[in-house]
Amino acid sequence: MSETLSESQSEILDAAAACFMKLGVRVASVDDIARSLGSTKGRIYHHFVSKGALLGAVRLQAPKFTRQAVAPVIDGTLPPGRNFHNMALAHVAAVFRTLPYHKVVMQHYTGLEAKSASDADRAMEARIQAANASYEDLFRAVIRAGMEHGEFRRQNLSVALHSVLILLNAPVFWYSPRPGEPEDFTVQVARQLADMGLAALA
Amino acid sequence: MSETLSESQSEILDAAAACFMKLGVRVASVDDIARSLGSTKGRIYHHFVSKGALLGAVRLQAPKFTRQAVAPVIDGTLPPGRNFHNMALAHVAAVFRTLPYHKVVMQHYTGLEAKSASDADRAMEARIQAANASYEDLFRAVIRAGMEHGEFRRQNLSVALHSVLILLNAPVFWYSPRPGEPEDFTVQVARQLADMGLAALA
Repeated sequence: MSETLSESQSEILDAAAACFMKLGVRVASVDDIARSLGSTKGRIYHHFVSKGALLGAVRLQAPKFTRQAVAPVIDGTLPPGRNFHNMALAHVAAVFRTLPYHKVVMQHYTGLEAKSASDADRAMEARIQAANASYEDLFRAVIRAGMEHGEFRRQNLSVALHSVLILLNAPVFWYSPRPGEPEDFTVQVARQLADMGLAALA
Repeated sequence: MSETLSESQSEILDAAAACFMKLGVRVASVDDIARSLGSTKGRIYHHFVSKGALLGAVRLQAPKFTRQAVAPVIDGTLPPGRNFHNMALAHVAAVFRTLPYHKVVMQHYTGLEAKSASDADRAMEARIQAANASYEDLFRAVIRAGMEHGEFRRQNLSVALHSVLILLNAPVFWYSPRPGEPEDFTVQVARQLADMGLAALA
């Protein structure tokens, strides 16, 4: 699989993320994903060698979505507080746009032990960890800058970083789109969470 | 099952929570739980009719643990900010003490669709929802009081409540006890999270 997804690969991953989210990653099968696409398993296997490869690609894609949204708004010339607030807004908006991917990622943060893994599995796991760590580093940098700048309270940086990211990811747990919700609901939530995150650090 | 757990039931639930956490709720079996107890399946089935009943009991117990810790520290005569801070400290400390239960609960917040359920399953699910809602109401009350009092920022109460609770539950995602960690590490984290939660509201 190349680094950039083709349109066809993106469509398959969207379907896979939705199936993993709804049925759970252990239960969802390539058959389920093909059915939801209205396509053959052959089309999926043409791009992804196995269900594990699909799951890996979904988990790898999640931090890419948020990075694509956050990286362009980073502005190191701003005070860290404003910089963080812009990043947080972009992060939450991206999470809302790509919710199933993030719900799937969350299924991996709940203490499930890794099953015996092949070399390819371990290599994919390492890529996913690296993508996550590198994305988190964007926020680590701005939080560290805020502490050095005196704008943020000095506290354990790792605890602050991971706790604020979980705060910003809160909708992954409680949000599902509801018919009749105000059009700007997700925008309001993004603003509220960015405000809460900033206040939690300041 | 009566409302209060016997010592034997507590021991079984502790083992069940640990197995569900490690193996995942779908994969862990009553056999796994019996093995980890060094006991027979008969002993488990004497108290819990099925794996589903065990899982329900674990999920029901999680908010009972936090409620047992939080309810006694609530003091409505304090300013809401201090009251919230005391409750948050007690909550995080209880989460650390009963971590596997909360990791199992989290497996249910990631978009898994409920499988076809029996009447007994639905009744248990209703009890769990009621226990969670009633526990959350303790925090809802103090956050509402803080807003009315002018001590907390006025914002969407439900979003604030659920986001702050997820912030306080952050260690459920990233924490596993590590050999050689400072003895008061969890105490420090509890303090940091309570401070962050309070700041996020104020």
